[in-house]
Order: sequence, then C-alpha cells, then structure tokens
Amino acid sequence: MNRETGIGKQMYDWAHDLFPVCRSITGDGVRSTLAYLKNIHPEMEIGSIKSGEKVFDWIVPDEWNIAEAYIADIDGKRIVDFRENNLHILSYSAPVNKKVPREELFEHLYTRPDLPDAIPYVTSYYSRNWGFCMSDKMKQELTDDEYHVFVDSSFTKGEMNYGEIFISGETTEEIVFSTYICHPSMANNELSGVVMATALAQFVKSLNKRKYSYRFLFIPETIGSIAYLSKHMSAMKRRTKCGFVLTCVGNEDHFSFMPSRTGNTYADKVALFVLSQSEKEFKKYSFLERGSDERQYCSPRVDLPIVSIMRSKYKEYKEYHTSLDNMGFITSNALKGTFDIYVKCIQVIETNEYYLSTTFCEPMLSKRQLYPEIGGQVKSDYVKLIKNIIAYADASMDMMDMSIVCQAKYEDLAEAVSLLVDKDLLQPFKR
Amino acid sequence: MNRETGIGKQMYDWAHDLFPVCRSITGDGVRSTLAYLKNIHPEMEIGSIKSGEKVFDWIVPDEWNIAEAYIADIDGKRIVDFRENNLHILSYSAPVNKKVPREELFEHLYTRPDLPDAIPYVTSYYSRNWGFCMSDKMKQELTDDEYHVFVDSSFTKGEMNYGEIFISGETTEEIVFSTYICHPSMANNELSGVVMATALAQFVKSLNKRKYSYRFLFIPETIGSIAYLSKHMSAMKRRTKCGFVLTCVGNEDHFSFMPSRTGNTYADKVALFVLSQSEKEFKKYSFLERGSDERQYCSPRVDLPIVSIMRSKYKEYKEYHTSLDNMGFITSNALKGTFDIYVKCIQVIETNEYYLSTTFCEPMLSKRQLYPEIGGQVKSDYVKLIKNIIAYADASMDMMDMSIVCQAKYEDLAEAVSLLVDKDLLQPFKR
Amino acid sequence: MNRETGIGKQMYDWAHDLFPVCRSITGDGVRSTLAYLKNIHPEMEIGSIKSGEKVFDWIVPDEWNIAEAYIADIDGKRIVDFRENNLHILSYSAPVNKKVPREELFEHLYTRPDLPDAIPYVTSYYSRNWGFCMSDKMKQELTDDEYHVFVDSSFTKGEMNYGEIFISGETTEEIVFSTYICHPSMANNELSGVVMATALAQFVKSLNKRKYSYRFLFIPETIGSIAYLSKHMSAMKRRTKCGFVLTCVGNEDHFSFMPSRTGNTYADKVALFVLSQSEKEFKKYSFLERGSDERQYCSPRVDLPIVSIMRSKYKEYKEYHTSLDNMGFITSNALKGTFDIYVKCIQVIETNEYYLSTTFCEPMLSKRQLYPEIGGQVKSDYVKLIKNIIAYADASMDMMDMSIVCQAKYEDLAEAVSLLVDKDLLQPFKR
Repeated sequence: MNRETGIGKQMYDWAHDLFPVCRSITGDGVRSTLAYLKNIHPEMEIGSIKSGEKVFDWIVPDEWNIAEAYIADIDGKRIVDFRENNLHILSYSAPVNKKVPREELFEHLYTRPDLPDAIPYVTSYYSRNWGFCMSDKMKQELTDDEYHVFVDSSFTKGEMNYGEIFISGETTEEIVFSTYICHPSMANNELSGVVMATALAQFVKSLNKRKYSYRFLFIPETIGSIAYLSKHMSAMKRRTKCGFVLTCVGNEDHFSFMPSRTGNTYADKVALFVLSQSEKEFKKYSFLERGSDERQYCSPRVDLPIVSIMRSKYKEYKEYHTSLDNMGFITSNALKGTFDIYVKCIQVIETNEYYLSTTFCEPMLSKRQLYPEIGGQVKSDYVKLIKNIIAYADASMDMMDMSIVCQAKYEDLAEAVSLLVDKDLLQPFKR
Repeated sequence: MNRETGIGKQMYDWAHDLFPVCRSITGDGVRSTLAYLKNIHPEMEIGSIKSGEKVFDWIVPDEWNIAEAYIADIDGKRIVDFRENNLHILSYSAPVNKKVPREELFEHLYTRPDLPDAIPYVTSYYSRNWGFCMSDKMKQELTDDEYHVFVDSSFTKGEMNYGEIFISGETTEEIVFSTYICHPSMANNELSGVVMATALAQFVKSLNKRKYSYRFLFIPETIGSIAYLSKHMSAMKRRTKCGFVLTCVGNEDHFSFMPSRTGNTYADKVALFVLSQSEKEFKKYSFLERGSDERQYCSPRVDLPIVSIMRSKYKEYKEYHTSLDNMGFITSNALKGTFDIYVKCIQVIETNEYYLSTTFCEPMLSKRQLYPEIGGQVKSDYVKLIKNIIAYADASMDMMDMSIVCQAKYEDLAEAVSLLVDKDLLQPFKR
Repeated sequence: MNRETGIGKQMYDWAHDLFPVCRSITGDGVRSTLAYLKNIHPEMEIGSIKSGEKVFDWIVPDEWNIAEAYIADIDGKRIVDFRENNLHILSYSAPVNKKVPREELFEHLYTRPDLPDAIPYVTSYYSRNWGFCMSDKMKQELTDDEYHVFVDSSFTKGEMNYGEIFISGETTEEIVFSTYICHPSMANNELSGVVMATALAQFVKSLNKRKYSYRFLFIPETIGSIAYLSKHMSAMKRRTKCGFVLTCVGNEDHFSFMPSRTGNTYADKVALFVLSQSEKEFKKYSFLERGSDERQYCSPRVDLPIVSIMRSKYKEYKEYHTSLDNMGFITSNALKGTFDIYVKCIQVIETNEYYLSTTFCEPMLSKRQLYPEIGGQVKSDYVKLIKNIIAYADASMDMMDMSIVCQAKYEDLAEAVSLLVDKDLLQPFKR
C-alpha cells in the first residue's frame, strides 16, 4: 500500500470510527468526537462557550443530550429505535413519554416520500418540539390506533464545544480550514470534512518549512462559526490570507466550487487556479447556492477570503441529509483525490510570490549554462519557459498569473523560478 | 373602464384635442398648446425668451405666425390649402403673393416620391424661403403653366415660449422629463410625448411621498432645449439625478432605447433595468442614432444623465415626419404601455437605495418569525430571497444590482427590503 | 513608373546591393553595410562600442572577421566554399586548418534534413567553435574518409558598430524605428527591415512639418539593442512616444502583428488601429512568440512602447534562417505594401489629438455653411460625421477612438476635424 492509498484509507477509517456517534450542535457527541480527534492531534485545543451567551445576533442554546428514544406499538414492541440509527430522532427533540393516537403521532413524524427507504435528517434547534424521522415505507406500516412515544433527552445549561488546531509558520498570516462536527451519522455531509481537516493538519505539520500559519477549526455549523467569529473576527480579518470550508469531500464525483461572496478573493483565485490546472471539468456554483459556513465567513463586513472545493455539493445529491449518506457513499479513493487538490492549494499558497527580473534586458543565459551554445537552432521548451518567466517578471504577476500567461504547469514554473532565484536572475517582490 | 384603460384613453383624447394646432418653434400655436396644458396643470409656468436673444451659439429667431396659405390654379381654384392640413406649409415660410410659372413653383415644392400619398413635414427656420409640402401624387397633377401662390405669414420681434411644471419632493435632486411642442399636426413624433409628460406629471402629483423633485419641460426641440440650458445649465447639472426625453411613445411597437452619450449614467441604468425586467425584447440604439433633445442634454460638458425610452424611434418608421404620422398611427393602448414603463422607472428611482446589513454574520431569522421552525428541510423561495438580500447587503449594490444578483423581481425585492428595514436587519447606506 | 512602384523598387534595389555582404554582429560586413546606408542618409551617425565592454548583463564580444573558408576533399577539390555563399560558415567560427576524419567533420556540420536543399544559418557568438553549414543533400554525398577544413577567421579587440539617424520635429517626443544589420545573405529576415527603415527615414524627412522627432536605429540584434539601451535607456524611456521593430516586412503574405509585453501601449493602439482600418485580415501573435528586439525594448523595467508589424513572422515560414530566404523570397510590391502601412501609422501618430467641443450644446452649423438650409430632410453623411465629431469631442477620446465610435475612416475624420478646428468649433485638449 503506497502512501497515497494510505491517506485515503486512513481518512476512511477515521470516518468509520466516528460514524456511530450521535452529534448535534452541543452535547456529549461533539465532545467525544473532539476527544477522538485530539488523540490524533494532541495540540488540539477544545474551546467552549456557555449556554445562553449572546454571540452576535444569536444565543448559544442549551446543551442537548439524549439517552434513549423509541416508538413502540401497543404490545411494547419498538418500531423505531434511536439505538438502531441516531437519525431517527429529531435533533434537539424535547423529552416525551406518553401514548398518542396515530393522528397525533403523524404530526411528529418526518419522512421523505420521494426516497421511501431513506430516514431524513431533521433538526429543531431553536423551537421546542419532539419528533421522529423514519423511512416513508415504515410510516406506511403504522396502522395501529395508538403508539407509545418515548424520548429520554435533556436540556441543560452547559456549553457548546469546538476544536482548534493552530500550526505556526514563518509569518502570522494564516490559512484557515473550517469544518463542522454537529451532524449525527452521515458520511459525506459531515465526516468527510472532519477527516479531511485532520489529514491536512497532518500534512501541514509534516512540512519542513511553512511560510504561513495554519488554523483548523472543528465547529458546529452556523452557530459555531457565528460564535467563533464573535470572539475572533478582527484577528481573523487581520490575519487570514485565505481559507476553505471543508464539507462534502468524500464521494465519487467531479469537483465543485463554491466561491466567496465577491468571487474575487485570493482564496477564489487559488481554488480556481488549482481546479483549472488539475481537472478537465468541475462545476462552479454561484454564491446564491451557498449553504455552509461561508454564509458567515463571507457575510457583509466579515468578508473573509474563504471558499469551498467539494465533490457533490450539499443539497445537490439525493442522499444529502438522509441515512443514504452513509459509509457506502464515500470512498477512500475520492477522499484521497480531494486531499491531493487541497495539498496542491497549500503548495501553491506556500510558494506563490511576485517576482521581478534583476537585469535590464534579457540576461545572458549561456554564461550561466542555461542556454544551448549553438544559436539559430530551435530552442528547447525549458529554455523557452525560462526566457518567458524572465520576460514577464515585472512584479505585476504572481506565479499563478505567470503560469497562465506562460502556459506552463505550476510545478514546472515553480521549479524554473527557483532555479532563476538561485542564479540571481529573479528576486521576490513584496506588494 | 378601469384606471389603466383610463389613462391611455385620457392621453389619446388630449392628443386628439391638440392635433389640429399649427405649432412651430415660436408663435400662437405654441402658446395655445401651452394654454391647453396649463388648464390641466394650473401650476405650469409659461416661460419666454425674446426674439434675437443669444443662447449659447444660437440666436432665438423671430416669432413666426401664419394666417392663410394656398396654391391656386389659373381659375382661382385652391389646389393646396393650409386650412386642410397645416403640414402643407413649409414651416417658417416667408410671405408670398404672386403668380409663378410651374417651373419656379416646383423649386418650392417638397414631396416624398417614396410615399406618394404622404405630405412631408419640412422646415426652414434659419433661412428665409417660401414653400409648400404636398403628396407626390398631387404634384404629378400640376400641369398648368402658371399658379398663384399665397402665403400670409409674418415674422415679428416676439418671443419663444415653453412650459415648465415643477413638483417638489423631499430632496432638491430632480428627475427631469423633457418633451417638445414645436411640430404641427403629427401624432407620434410630437403629441405622444406631450400627453405622456402631462399624464406622468399627474401620476407624480398623486404620490403620497416623493423622495425626489420632478421637473417637466415642454419646449421647442433643439432651440428650446439650447435656450433652456443656456439659462439653467449649472442648476440642472447640480440637481439632475436622471432624466428622460419623451418622444415617439404612442404607436404599437416594441420599445426602443436611446442611451446617453456615455451610456453609463444613472438614467441609462434605470431605463435598461426596467426594460430588461419588463420586456422580452426591445431595441437598443447607439447614440450615433440620436435625434431629439439628448443631442443637447448629453453634449460634451453639459453631460446630463438623460436617455429616452420610445416605441418606434424617430427616423425609423416610414410615417415619421409626414402626414401619415396621424391620430390613426397612435393608440391609447400603446400610450398606456409606455406610461406603465415610465411609472416603473419612477417607482424604481423613488425606492432605490444602497443597503448594509446591520448584523455581523447571518441574523437569527426564527426569532423574528422569518424562518420555518423545523430545519433541514427545503426552504421557501421567500426565505431564500430574504437570506440573499442580507447576504449581499454590503453597501456596494443598489436594489437594481441586488435584483439582478438575487434573480428577483424588483417589486418582490423592494417588499422584502422594506420588511427587513422594519425588522432592523438592513439600514440604508448613503454613498 | 509611378512614385508608389518607385519606392518598392528602390527598396528592393538597395536590398539587392546589400545582399552579398557577409554581416555578423561585429566586423567589416556591418561597417560596409552602414557605409552604404550613410551614402543614402549622410546624417547617419556611426556608433561604436569596444569589444569587452560590459553592457547590462552582457559583454561585447571580440570583433570577428573572415577572409576564406572551405572544406576540401583529399584531392584538394573544394566541396563547400564560403565564397559561394556566406551562410556556409558557422557565424563566429574559430579558425581551423587541418585534416579531419569524416566522423569528426560531421560533428561540425549543420544541415536541415527537413529542407534538404537549404543551407541553414547558424551562429556561435559566445562559445568558440568551428563549423560549416550546408544542404543536407550535399552532406549525404560526403563519403570520403578524410577532409581538409580551412577557416581563415580572426577575433580581435575591435568594436561593435551601429547606425543612427535622428530627424528632429517640433517636440522632443520620439518615434523610434529599430532594425538589425547582423545577418549574412538573407533577404526577408534582415534586409527587408534595413531598407524599410531607410525608406521611412526618407519619407519622414520629406514631411513639411513633424510634430514628433524620429530616431532610426540600425543595430546588431540582441547584443546591439542591449548595448544601445545600456547607454540610452533613461532618455528613451523619457522620450519615446512609440516605436516599431522593422523585420520580415518584404514577402508576399498577410500582415502579422507582435504586441508589446503588456499589449496596451500607444504603439499597440496605433498598429492595431491602422491594421484594422486597412486590412481585411491580419494575424495577431502573442508576446510569447516574440523573437526580435522587442525582447529587450519590452523587458521588465525597460518597458518601451514598441511593437512590430510584419509580413510572415520570423520562425513562422519555412525559408526562415536558411538560404531560401533570398532575393526571390521578397518582392518590391510587398515592400511597398508594408511601407504604406507604416506611413499610415506615421500619419496617424502625427495628426492624432484629443479634442474638446468649444460650444455648449450643438453649435449652429447653418450660420457656418455646414448645414443644409432646409430641415426635416435626410442629412448627408458628411453633416452626420461633423455632428458626431462634435457630439463626442469631450476630451476623453483621441481621433482613433472617435474614428471607431463614429464608424468613419481616419482620413475622413481627420479632414473634418481640421475643418472644425478652422471654424473654431473644436480645440485640441492636452491630456
């Protein structure tokens, strides 16, 4: 098994371990997930914000925990049981323990008639309800007049937790990766992002040299990013060079791209450049179709340079937010492919600079062993690339721009730039 | 008869009343036309500029009036008579009373061989001539050797008149509508604009609340706008938010658009936005094809933000500047349709603002009864629109921009913006 | 023979005279070429830079001269002789006089197997080698075991020469034409540019009035332009309004265009405007495909506004850099056509200005005899052009911009502008 297969398999295995945990935006499920990740990255810091704390326009909700939940028939036989699949319970369901007529029960059931075998994922964070989710097929079989509903859940003044890994580099400018840890048993839309962040943090730590610092956030979606921003917005605005929301990165599909609100940040540039260089086709969405934490990071006056490279985008695949988004829906191969794309993004970010030619006019390449000695004959592609880099090194283009103008692969260009810097023919230019 | 049909019919009736008047750039025809309009809008002020007064590069010409004009044959039978159609006389024709051989007469006749039944409209404001216009068919029948030509016209040191309706709003910024009152009996190219201005002034007066002030100008074309600008240019440049030349707005045809010289003024933006939202197709002309008072309003250093939404553009329909441009060529239905478009322009202008989101990150919609309580399910289009407005309210886009970005009808967007302002989630932003 | 045919024929004849000279980047061939040109333009100054002098990143090489060179067979029969075609010698070949086995000889032979009849042009300026160029067909016939190679060449501490014609105008702003004088017997890629510069200098001197000064440079390619820039860069940057590299301008083909590095200089604008107005089709290359002295003139921080209008571009025709690029490959007709294009460029550069209308609103044309007296009739194209020029004369557009906006030929527009300046309706505007 080579290293490449290795990291895909590793990510898949982590997701497999975390799959059964019943996560929500608060509670024990979040904490056990973070504990698992801290085992991999011991420097992870676990943050907490108290229930009831005001975070911008929102209030951190009470902590929710659940021990047991089922619907039983007249004979006490459990028809739906939370132990079998934690999607069965409406997330943040209030406790209940009573007999209810079928009509009343039905008002508290959520199904997907268009996907009769799927259990949907439904939440009611900010309004007290009780409820169950099940396959529409199962619902059709509920013909008794009365059922026993039992939910043993609790709301307590506790805290909302999140994890944070900070890896310092030569500068305080940061690359941010944000993913979320608030969904119960779903694979692509939740765990793929969590394990991708975990693997990328490993990769970043393995680098001998880092120009930038890196921050990995494992937070509850929406309320978590809002809460985090309410504490750290000005520091993030000051430090963030670019960032990515990691979500839906594990299924076999072409890549898709969610831009920032303005579509013209450095993150947009890097992501589109890497996708264009690496992929024959990918789908570019509009910010109108946003749906994850870019909603907060890119909101007016927050304006962080954060985008998302995904496989099948949330809301755009039928398994989304159902029990069909399970461990069979993601693959170690797809995870590995996405990992490679993000690694390319990191490599571009780490190496990208503006350069200025050190000489006036073309330098004499032959005295530096950069030129064939007999002139007038066809030049090699490599000499052409070197001459083009020098010709365009006017401090107005970064290496991505040069790569596009010179029609060269970024890797080839970066290698040639490095050689020319060694030969004192180029110097980096701070803008 | 509903209100909509009402205003179209009303405009048609006014045009019908004004059709027989023999207007030119000066004289009794202009004054009687303005008197008729002042009867509808008593606050109209009638302005005057003396004959011989220098206005920029021009001189206001002597006042011209005409009592009678005809061509008679040897037997005294009137072959062409001004009383039958005031287009028969060359506008600003000098007086004449003599017998002339046919050859000489022919040098003073104007016809349209391409439209043998039409009497053309011809003028000679700045060069003394006498002349008659007639159908080419009629000209072919003139076989006598000699004719009697009689024109009882006069040139006097009088004045050039124009009408002006000013309707004040909350601010001194003005919306300008300019139309002209110098053509004799022609319907689309003259009276349609006059009655449109009259109806729009009624509409503006009927508004409970006006952010902007409105100015309606009824002036002779070219010399009138030059004279008006020579008196008021700096005030107009200071106050005019946007404006429209009203002409050729009454026939059944798609809409057409004449941009300002630069094509990027606020008037261009409003007109193109409203046309794009309302019409499946419309024709966009180049400023090279200009022909009415935008020639003056958009001239270099005058540079007013003034455009024109028309039906068939002047010079682009065969009836133009002939007796075929008569009351049968315009319809109350077409007038009503154009009225609606200009009303939409006014509504956009009155409501359009830049907005800034008041919260950092997304606001919590559910606590304001703006969000469905059960999450994870498909959201309504209305909630999407609200979230999109807030997401893009970064003070860089006005409501037209937002309407385009959010792919929403302006009316829907304006209603949602209004709700969000009431909920303190948006605030207007002055730029 | 009319003047037009005249200049084409004249250029062809000059090229014919210069064709046999064995030029290189230094030596007697350059000096005799410059002497010939100084005979035509006695004010030409002959410049020199000493061998060994450092010019930016380069060193001026020793002067190279050659008296005789041949390959003889065992019997002393000359198989290849420099006297027959000066392309036979590797330019800057070191002296040699010895018997060599065929295998060793073959390491010093240059041929073009893809063009078996052509002698290629090969150089070794900066690395001491000896070598011969010949047709591949001839090489195939070399079956002896041993040959006698003889090169009587010399390297001396001498100088590198160039020619410069300066023609002063009303201002110190300069138009630069640069061509090169370093290739042996080749017609399109060398002499066509030399004779074009010579003819254009004659044309410029013949002008009664020159707004701009003109500088014609006859320099060795690459090392010559680098050396010239090393002496004059700041003056050139201060004074150069625009410039052109003259090369490959003599064969029968469509025109082609080499932009500056940025592609948006005044030279790019003039060249593309003239080509677009004059030619149904022409080929626009990318700066990636550059190959002559624009490599130096447009290098970062040199940044001169210099482009090239060619016929078949260097490297893009099969005869390039071979004995097939001979006097049969260029024609007086093609030279004349290119001359006409450059003359148009000069005429545009000399006349082009920004203009501002002197009046507010439209001026009264009729009092200046610029307008038909009878209004309401169709206007002539000329009146339309005059009105359009005045309508757009807002000091934001130069005459090329106006020509495009007004859809008028530059010549027609320039004539109308001149009339309007005479009538005090336009004034030039300095930007």
